[in-house]
Amino acid sequence: MTSRTYELDRAHVFHSWSAQAEIDPMVITEAWGSRVRDEAGTEYLDFSSQLVFTNLGHGHPRVVAAIQEQAARLCTIAPQHATEARSEAARLIAGLAPDGLNKVFFTNGGADANEHAIRMARLHTGRPKVLAAYRSYHGGTQTAVNVTGDPRRWPSDTGTAGVVHFFGPFRYRSEFHAVTEEQECERALAHLRRTIEAEGPATIAAIILETIPGTAGIMPPPPGYLPGVRALCDRFGIVLILDEVMAGFGRAGAWFALDRYDVRPDLITFAKGVNSGYVPLGGVVISDAIAGTFAHTAYPGGLTYSGHPLATAAAVATIEAMTGEGTVANADRLGRDLLGPGLRELAGKHAVVGDVRGVGVFWAVELVAGRDTREPLPAAATAEVVAACKRAGLLPFSTANRLHLVPPCNVADEDVTAALGMLDGALSRRS
Amino acid sequence: MTSRTYELDRAHVFHSWSAQAEIDPMVITEAWGSRVRDEAGTEYLDFSSQLVFTNLGHGHPRVVAAIQEQAARLCTIAPQHATEARSEAARLIAGLAPDGLNKVFFTNGGADANEHAIRMARLHTGRPKVLAAYRSYHGGTQTAVNVTGDPRRWPSDTGTAGVVHFFGPFRYRSEFHAVTEEQECERALAHLRRTIEAEGPATIAAIILETIPGTAGIMPPPPGYLPGVRALCDRFGIVLILDEVMAGFGRAGAWFALDRYDVRPDLITFAKGVNSGYVPLGGVVISDAIAGTFAHTAYPGGLTYSGHPLATAAAVATIEAMTGEGTVANADRLGRDLLGPGLRELAGKHAVVGDVRGVGVFWAVELVAGRDTREPLPAAATAEVVAACKRAGLLPFSTANRLHLVPPCNVADEDVTAALGMLDGALSRRS
Repeated sequence: MTSRTYELDRAHVFHSWSAQAEIDPMVITEAWGSRVRDEAGTEYLDFSSQLVFTNLGHGHPRVVAAIQEQAARLCTIAPQHATEARSEAARLIAGLAPDGLNKVFFTNGGADANEHAIRMARLHTGRPKVLAAYRSYHGGTQTAVNVTGDPRRWPSDTGTAGVVHFFGPFRYRSEFHAVTEEQECERALAHLRRTIEAEGPATIAAIILETIPGTAGIMPPPPGYLPGVRALCDRFGIVLILDEVMAGFGRAGAWFALDRYDVRPDLITFAKGVNSGYVPLGGVVISDAIAGTFAHTAYPGGLTYSGHPLATAAAVATIEAMTGEGTVANADRLGRDLLGPGLRELAGKHAVVGDVRGVGVFWAVELVAGRDTREPLPAAATAEVVAACKRAGLLPFSTANRLHLVPPCNVADEDVTAALGMLDGALSRRS
Repeated sequence: MTSRTYELDRAHVFHSWSAQAEIDPMVITEAWGSRVRDEAGTEYLDFSSQLVFTNLGHGHPRVVAAIQEQAARLCTIAPQHATEARSEAARLIAGLAPDGLNKVFFTNGGADANEHAIRMARLHTGRPKVLAAYRSYHGGTQTAVNVTGDPRRWPSDTGTAGVVHFFGPFRYRSEFHAVTEEQECERALAHLRRTIEAEGPATIAAIILETIPGTAGIMPPPPGYLPGVRALCDRFGIVLILDEVMAGFGRAGAWFALDRYDVRPDLITFAKGVNSGYVPLGGVVISDAIAGTFAHTAYPGGLTYSGHPLATAAAVATIEAMTGEGTVANADRLGRDLLGPGLRELAGKHAVVGDVRGVGVFWAVELVAGRDTREPLPAAATAEVVAACKRAGLLPFSTANRLHLVPPCNVADEDVTAALGMLDGALSRRS
């Protein structure tokens, strides 16, 4: 029996990144905290945070109340005016960024945040090119998908003028034949430097990097990498854009993942966790130097819903709730004491696990056909593991040969323990 | 005395399309129906509908209630799942489109709707180029701003591969030396045909047009123009994209402005009025043929908030409210019986008015230095008229040498009469 919701979805909803006739969406009817329920009444632990954005879980009462109050008071106002929720959200977000980044340009999501950050960098420097990493995701609009470093870019590779990709550090699958973390870091920086020199430093406006690459595999960089990139940017007058769309707002056990590294970017892009995805919102935090470029020259970009009152009210409530409830510290503790150790224990137990990486509530489990070869587990076999997780009541985020365990930052310890048990069972079928 | 909201805005909010040090935003504290109030307590008739999106006015109780209920029930769900509000919104929107357009891809706004429509057209046809009109606006992200036909495009003209601009019909400032509407139509179609032939028909994926160009000047096309464009698209295998972001959802006195013309596009883009801008939402309505291209081949595009429950719940409530309250017919009547005639009367009275154009609640008043020369009124003089309107308590949308009178579709007749009086007073100072 199919429901009206399912039938209408199949008849009228065109889905993201999908072959429309080959998908079978789950109908979600309820969601609370770290759980969702489908229309058959089956309950799942949501360790996907949907698309890694419900950092406060589903239905957080404080954020819901803020949305309801703002909807009643002042639902929408155009970007050219000023309004309380927008001002307050900008103050709070700028306050979380490093010193010297004081202005916030609000967008609707992460893709347009990256679009605008790149435009700002190009106009600020007067240079055309942008360097971006393979194994990255920056969004689905034209510039955002052009800087993306995964195959989702290929069909849109027309009009990529000025985008150059390089390899970042990733010791488990090193592009640099490195055997230690220090070597990986050093060689990745040398490779980036050579790429800059070969492209022409004076032609490069920006380097854009996810602070911790997310969908591409949750690969925390070696400690020295981002400071090294910053030094190259300083040397060659290049703008450093750190994409914190997925890694920010508690996900990595820090307000911004960059807080874990000794680095100050010129532009930070954000979305998702900023308001737990309760209302579409993204943005760019802008350095004083770049904001100054547009003090008396108009910034040539904008959008109807920039700083939408409902979205920014949800951000204010989210940041206040996370502050009041110690959510960020909780995510850090979970990564250190429970989720990280638990996943590493599973890696020790199941040969199908090739690598476990992460921090906070931001973890990847990489499945392999063999530990020696590190050959990715084939898609069908990976899908079996995901299906076994679902049957057990666990919803992971899955992509390529990986499971990402990315629960809300305020997930209960007992839910983490339960999820680890479900994952253990699902992996056992392959061990 | 400046308020905290104002001070925080100036310290931390980076505004769209602006020189940041040269703006002085109005702080809006309250808004209801066709009115807003600033923090000094001054009340304005909002004939801007903000950025031409509050088609149901501010604070419509039914839409506010729908947002509040959805927020409590299920605030957010990822795009890969199915959920009731999204399914229902897709059904309602597809139901408003011409036969044969049955699928809806939801985005966050109009810019990404146009980005994705163009990507769909390119992949569907396998051709690279897009033809777009000068005097147009399609959004601020890279592809969207590249097809835009106003100066906001120029700073982003890197990476425009495959975008070609042509001139559309506009009798008041004819590019074709036409003196009648029929002649303008015929010559504009001949010019488009010559452009297609000169660019190479087999290289052109799509023609994108605002059904009624909006920010560029509210220029309803001659009746035969869009059918003529459709015929050219059919002849040459080109996808026709009609951008209804501003003109749709009642603005032009019809659900879609294209209902006023004998034309069936392949893709329709929408945003703004779909939910009165209460929650960021846009989308693409897709023909069966184009949807079929992505039945067994993945569509290479997507976004985290596609079909966001809060945004789609607001769309469902908006469409139901507009249907129940006869809002679209009201907009049509206002254009025909009150706002249109009233503006034409002012044109007869004030020499500074060179032209009045529009339909529904979608009207432009073009100000000129002289009626014979049609020379645009200089910026400073136009700003004086706008300032006089504001002093009288009227908030128009203003751009270049024009005032756009674009109130909510459910504006009260007496508010239209009052606004016409305020505008009369503002124009009198120049007559």
